[in-house]
Order: sequence, then structure tokens, then C-alpha cells
Amino acid sequence: MTSRKVYYSYSEYREDLKTLIEKIDQDFDAILGIARGGLSIAQMLGEYYDLREVYSINTIGYEDTQKNDTVEVFNIPELKESKKVLIVDDIVDSGDTLVEVLAVLNEKYPNITFVTASLFYKKTAKIAPNWYVKEPESWIKFFWSEDLRKR
Amino acid sequence: MTSRKVYYSYSEYREDLKTLIEKIDQDFDAILGIARGGLSIAQMLGEYYDLREVYSINTIGYEDTQKNDTVEVFNIPELKESKKVLIVDDIVDSGDTLVEVLAVLNEKYPNITFVTASLFYKKTAKIAPNWYVKEPESWIKFFWSEDLRKR
Repeated sequence: MTSRKVYYSYSEYREDLKTLIEKIDQDFDAILGIARGGLSIAQMLGEYYDLREVYSINTIGYEDTQKNDTVEVFNIPELKESKKVLIVDDIVDSGDTLVEVLAVLNEKYPNITFVTASLFYKKTAKIAPNWYVKEPESWIKFFWSEDLRKR
Repeated sequence: MTSRKVYYSYSEYREDLKTLIEKIDQDFDAILGIARGGLSIAQMLGEYYDLREVYSINTIGYEDTQKNDTVEVFNIPELKESKKVLIVDDIVDSGDTLVEVLAVLNEKYPNITFVTASLFYKKTAKIAPNWYVKEPESWIKFFWSEDLRKR
């Protein structure tokens, strides 16, 4: 991890999503994107898998005094008819968000299986997604954060 | 409206979002994307306006026997602290979805102001968004539906 910042373009994202699809070797019946980073991934995978069951979930991270970050999870969607749900996010960095999202969802939906996928995964995270594409080598400037600023 | 199908690329989308941002002349404190088509728009506008309050809402359309389509709205997010919310979607076509989403949200949140924006708007729709960019001249093949299929 250097302090280099590397631009992550839409075309790289598109190719990485194709790679992610090749890696995902299980069926699922709904997709849950962690806002904000997982929303466009959820949308595009929903289109690819022809699933209209595309949901989102919100999290807010708080730094607490014990060096551990606390993550609040809210806007948990109704998943009544789902049996297996794919959770997607852009990056699993510390893993705090994914750990807490899974804890909240497993508690609310003990009969649903949750599997996880991300574009990026840092090996130092406290949880690994089931599938990911790349390890970040630098600070990533995602196109969705950058492209509307360029004039 | 012809039967022509025209591909709508990411770069056209990016430029249209810039145009939409120029048109939007009001502040708001949350963004609500109508799934699936509004999700990536909500994400990118959330990044642009530096709002972490990016939510989604689900709809299912049913054809009923009276020629009127019924739209069921679900997964309505908590919007407690919001005063004005921007609702986004890719296209306002018949307007059925947007009408029903607004009805449900206005009923649940009578004290919140909802404004609406879309990339495309068909003049025959029963409701116009506050802001839009283009009128569709053909069937649109959105990049998010097409790009993962190309190999």
C-alpha cells in the first residue's frame, strides 16, 4: 500500500465485473448493495443475472475511543422470499462494514444464506468476501467519485 | 418513438449527469434511487454532492385487467432527518412508477419535500420530473444492461 492514487475507470470496472461474474459459482435470488459503493455493482449484476430483487443497505462508521470503529447498519431491506442473497460492495478494506452488515442480516434472517463479493479486498481485512477480483495496490480513485468533477 | 434501439454508453451517461447537475437548482439533503435504474445515478450524485444519505426504494409493476398498471412500492427507507429528498431514476416512461413512489413517500413523510430528476423523460408520461436531460428518441439500450453481456 503506497500513497499513490490510481484512477479506476469505468472500463476497468466493467472488465472486473466480468471477472467477478466468472468467479461467482453459486446461484442466488437477490442482490444487496452496500451504499454507496455497492449500488452500481448491484444494479449491473441485477441486470446481468436478470434479477429484479436488487436491494440496498446503509451503514455509517463511527470512530470510537477504543481504536475500534463502530458501524451502524440501517435501512435493512425486506428479504422475505429470498433463500440466498449476494451482498456486494466496491472494496473490503478493514472489513468492519461487511462484518457488521453480515451480523445484522444473519440475526434478522437466520434462514437466509448470505454470500459476499467485492471488486477489491485488502488481505489485512478482518473478513474475506467469498469472491473478489483484485487487491488494491494504492489509494483507488473510483470513477464514480471522480468523473463528475472533471470538466 | 421508433423501433430503433440505440446504445447509451457510460460516457454519454456521465455527460448527461453533468448536464443534470447543472439543471438541478435546489439543495437537498438525501438522494433516493428507484431500483434498479436509479441506483448508479444515486451513487454518483451522492459522491458529487458529498451526501452519504443515499437510499433506494423498490417497485414492482403489475399489469392489471383494467389497462392500468399497478405499481407496488416497498423497502421504503427511513428518512427521519431529511427535509428535502431528491428522487432519481433513469427514465420516466409512463410515469406510473414515479407517481406511485411519490404517493407512498408523501403519505409516509408529509413533512419532507420530494423533488425528482431523471436522465430521460417521455412527454406522454403522466408526471414530469422536476429535472431531466433528454427525451428518448428510440428504445434505449442502457450500458448497465448491455456491457456485461459483451465478450
